[in-house]
Amino acid sequence: MTLNITTIHEANDPRLEAYRNIREKDLVGRQHQFIAEGKVILSALLHSKEFSAVSLLVVAARLLGIMPILKETKPTCPIYCVPQKIMDDIAGFHVHRGMLGIGERKKLPSLKEFLQNLPEKALIPVLCGISNHDNMGAIFRNAAAFASTGIIVDKTSCDPLYRKSIRVSAGAALNVPYTQGDDIDSIITALSNADFHLYALSPSAPRYLKDTKAIKHTALIFGTEGNGLPAHVLQKSETLRIPMAYGFDSINVATASGLALAHFADFDKLN
Amino acid sequence: MTLNITTIHEANDPRLEAYRNIREKDLVGRQHQFIAEGKVILSALLHSKEFSAVSLLVVAARLLGIMPILKETKPTCPIYCVPQKIMDDIAGFHVHRGMLGIGERKKLPSLKEFLQNLPEKALIPVLCGISNHDNMGAIFRNAAAFASTGIIVDKTSCDPLYRKSIRVSAGAALNVPYTQGDDIDSIITALSNADFHLYALSPSAPRYLKDTKAIKHTALIFGTEGNGLPAHVLQKSETLRIPMAYGFDSINVATASGLALAHFADFDKLN
Repeated sequence: MTLNITTIHEANDPRLEAYRNIREKDLVGRQHQFIAEGKVILSALLHSKEFSAVSLLVVAARLLGIMPILKETKPTCPIYCVPQKIMDDIAGFHVHRGMLGIGERKKLPSLKEFLQNLPEKALIPVLCGISNHDNMGAIFRNAAAFASTGIIVDKTSCDPLYRKSIRVSAGAALNVPYTQGDDIDSIITALSNADFHLYALSPSAPRYLKDTKAIKHTALIFGTEGNGLPAHVLQKSETLRIPMAYGFDSINVATASGLALAHFADFDKLN
Repeated sequence: MTLNITTIHEANDPRLEAYRNIREKDLVGRQHQFIAEGKVILSALLHSKEFSAVSLLVVAARLLGIMPILKETKPTCPIYCVPQKIMDDIAGFHVHRGMLGIGERKKLPSLKEFLQNLPEKALIPVLCGISNHDNMGAIFRNAAAFASTGIIVDKTSCDPLYRKSIRVSAGAALNVPYTQGDDIDSIITALSNADFHLYALSPSAPRYLKDTKAIKHTALIFGTEGNGLPAHVLQKSETLRIPMAYGFDSINVATASGLALAHFADFDKLN
């Protein structure tokens, strides 16, 4: 095996441009590229079929730690090796995990492609207006934990590939299939045409989550905590609620997704 | 009603010292004082019996928005009123919610006091080594949502009154009774003496969460995601697991707390 490892001693080396001031870059479009951070996420990136590594940046002292993953996945991209201080100077903060990578998505499936070739039983969270990166990452993590078929992210939600979202997802943002960018009405129509039963969580719903069962194709629509889902979305769904203490407004949407996905999960796929 | 409102035009006014560079102060001990941020949290602070407001700092344009809460709770503390720019200069970042407060705890109950006068059915999460402020806040929020009796926080966990933890808790850190600072072994002994049944979540447990029922006094021990709970803690508990996809390591501890607390919650206290 030949790994393409280059040692760099200058923080202003142009080959490291993509890693410069990462936090600021989090806020702008990155043309299907994203930052992966830490061993768990880099491992998910290097093992993925949907994403590829453009380059890796590893603190010299951490190279041994990631070597087993490199040996297993044999990436052909450049692996830049730097002292911790140069890593921190370039990134603009202390990268305590000591390893970063630039990842790239091969192709985002369209909603139509995403809904083709579904398994016999499908469980799909649909995210409407989820703009918080922590919640986005946590919902992906829950979807992976409870063996969801994939995720549909509407056009008003944030990008699951933001650095923080990927980190919070514990790598699930690179593992769980998803499609992104359609408006919620088109998504609902497409799901109905694909024979999905639509559930939505709402504090005012007449029926409890626990009193329902998974249907062959189940979609679970999640909205923001503050405003909840728009009325026309609730009208097109069967609404369910999670019983909560009197006077308590609502739990966090990521926790709600954990409860609902655990409830509807296909037990045969769990351990 | 007389409210003690003072308009301040200078960012270097000494009365605002407690609000200066808030982020840095998050990292140091604050002698039972803490920062409350935004309307929801200030409302929880002003309504609390266990905590009192030392002062409030409100952007002039936001004063009307919080006035109903001030009229209802009649705080006697100083209310400093400033332009947004001074608020941001003092805090060291853009305070988009436009209102802050310094809160103070009246008295933290000891573990012994905390375990006195329990209701007939008690459900208590016990946090061991929860050092992440987001997780701490989210667990408090779940404890409030599912009507937990209170929370026990061990000495290796972080302070529930960090600004970010309070914010993520949606104010529950100021509502849910808790005690803090004992080591996990003393906590386990005290709970056993108080006739609690101890459950702990662990991926290797033989029994599923869903196959258990709440016992009169139920304690649920949660540890960190990475290392999990120490072996001697697991040995003293009945371990339970949440079924997850094959090969998936673990869900976030806050999501796990949501699942477990929802499962054991006293349905009579829920809506």
